[in-house]
Amino acid sequence: MKITRRDLIRATAATAVRGALAPASVAFDDPLPSWSNGPAKKAILTFVKDTTEKSSPKYVEPNDRVATFDQDGTLWTEHPLYGQAMFALDRLAKMAPQHPEWKETDPFKAILSGDREAMSKFSEKDWVEIVAVTHSGMDTADFQALVSQWITTAKAPRFDRLYTDLVYQPMLEVVTYLREKGFRVYIVTGGGQEFVRVYSERVYNVAPEQVVGSSIVTKYDISSGKPVLMREPKPFFIDDGPGKAVGINMFIGKRPYAAFGNSNGDQQMLEWTQAGDGARLMMLVHHDDATREYAYGPGGGLPDTHVGIFSDALMADANKNGWIVISMKDDWKRIFAFDK
Amino acid sequence: MKITRRDLIRATAATAVRGALAPASVAFDDPLPSWSNGPAKKAILTFVKDTTEKSSPKYVEPNDRVATFDQDGTLWTEHPLYGQAMFALDRLAKMAPQHPEWKETDPFKAILSGDREAMSKFSEKDWVEIVAVTHSGMDTADFQALVSQWITTAKAPRFDRLYTDLVYQPMLEVVTYLREKGFRVYIVTGGGQEFVRVYSERVYNVAPEQVVGSSIVTKYDISSGKPVLMREPKPFFIDDGPGKAVGINMFIGKRPYAAFGNSNGDQQMLEWTQAGDGARLMMLVHHDDATREYAYGPGGGLPDTHVGIFSDALMADANKNGWIVISMKDDWKRIFAFDK
Repeated sequence: MKITRRDLIRATAATAVRGALAPASVAFDDPLPSWSNGPAKKAILTFVKDTTEKSSPKYVEPNDRVATFDQDGTLWTEHPLYGQAMFALDRLAKMAPQHPEWKETDPFKAILSGDREAMSKFSEKDWVEIVAVTHSGMDTADFQALVSQWITTAKAPRFDRLYTDLVYQPMLEVVTYLREKGFRVYIVTGGGQEFVRVYSERVYNVAPEQVVGSSIVTKYDISSGKPVLMREPKPFFIDDGPGKAVGINMFIGKRPYAAFGNSNGDQQMLEWTQAGDGARLMMLVHHDDATREYAYGPGGGLPDTHVGIFSDALMADANKNGWIVISMKDDWKRIFAFDK
Repeated sequence: MKITRRDLIRATAATAVRGALAPASVAFDDPLPSWSNGPAKKAILTFVKDTTEKSSPKYVEPNDRVATFDQDGTLWTEHPLYGQAMFALDRLAKMAPQHPEWKETDPFKAILSGDREAMSKFSEKDWVEIVAVTHSGMDTADFQALVSQWITTAKAPRFDRLYTDLVYQPMLEVVTYLREKGFRVYIVTGGGQEFVRVYSERVYNVAPEQVVGSSIVTKYDISSGKPVLMREPKPFFIDDGPGKAVGINMFIGKRPYAAFGNSNGDQQMLEWTQAGDGARLMMLVHHDDATREYAYGPGGGLPDTHVGIFSDALMADANKNGWIVISMKDDWKRIFAFDK
């Protein structure tokens, strides 16, 4: 058990100086300072109380405390395009001189000529092809080095900051709070497992083995006398939609007590979480803040941007099932760590 | 940090009563009491010292301390047949009345007529078919219930004991010792991930999320309004041979510092482990004890039984690479917990 600053403050408040310090200690004691007081914050605090206080009828043994978080749009910004898609496009541009044939071949042609209109209509098959070309043909160590180089230098448009600066401070607080309360926190992402693992520990304090994601086939081989895992241009597992429930069962083998998402691809993860007994927390981030971040849906009457879709059907399901919709605009006092 | 009985004894021995109690404390202090003093035991103790003492040049940060164990033949008995194969055969017999066609169809015919000769010649394709039929067509919860019922009642031949009684006491000691020293212990098995997870926590103190194994395809579905994961009769991932290196990378994302196996299917796991920097421990259990357990190879001139093959080539590789071969007969004072 790690002793945290909050534990110390709590212990202090509970003893000699209780009376005098009580109001101050309440403020210091807030595990979610970037959250406005409202139903979303209250739901998190109630859930943690219900599942971790020994006297609670909904108490959950520490071994079973599992929480899962989608990444794109839930832990960090996914607009105008997923970080990993930007990585793929950057890499494609770098590889292009060695592939003159791409100038005449879709979907590469559209990318290399900067045809945003055509790119916005890319099918899933197009993206699979782009990922296959840019993410394979090397071993896992070389891929990790490429991602590491990119993620520490590439800047996100609009904010002109590293992608890892665009992590949501309120969600980091939830991750930290749950972990302090004995939960094992997993990232369950439609993005590439091996991509996210490169920075998950540094950015989210989530260990590689607690990142569940999509993957391509890897093949064991011996190269110059050393074993390597070669990345093949074939999808292996797609951790999205129904795949998130499959992935959770395969990688964790336990049902989450709390699940956080933001789009249609998270629906089954929330359904799977809710189907368990006892206290369960299901939350969806709704991007309704065009001023501080982005606003898109189409759920809630916001623009339909085709990236991280939160549909009207998902909004209806959330209301029907009692899933908490987090309003970025109203529930988050601060979005990024660099916000004042 | 948990305080163990050994820590207390150590602390006691180190203070007032040091002189008087020293000889006794050495005996009490042995983390591997079922191991004979020999090169195998020494290799384990040296590895732990090298990787966990802060002053060691080969010190490994706690976050990176990963150890992987094969299951069949490494943690428990795999003869005359893998436990899970026995489960499949038992289940096939139970299902047979609903499948009269099996009496005329291979490989089921051979099993139902008790044709041991034909069964011993089953190909991998035959076994895949047997597993597909007996392990699918139900959801994950129903499968877990079936395994749970079987594993707590079925008896292993020869010993007439539960399969979980046939766990190797010396290996349990290694698992416990490594965990006490900050290692995360994973089971990396060619057997079914969902099968082993049913009893891994109870028997080995290894949590479900730390069991990496073979799996079949599961499909998300809604049944009577509740989400389920249906088990399909299709292999998804084969965690054997090269698949063990792939599985370790996929599920753990970190290279093990120690790997324990016993057969050809563990070769790539040991190669992958050894390819890392610093102190690495690679060990293979050699079943050379027909009196207390079983004796088979063909490596080391023992009978070739086709279950858990330890080939001459693997023995040559072990010698060449400095992998430690554990002699059951010489290195283990005791094999099972029920041994005197």
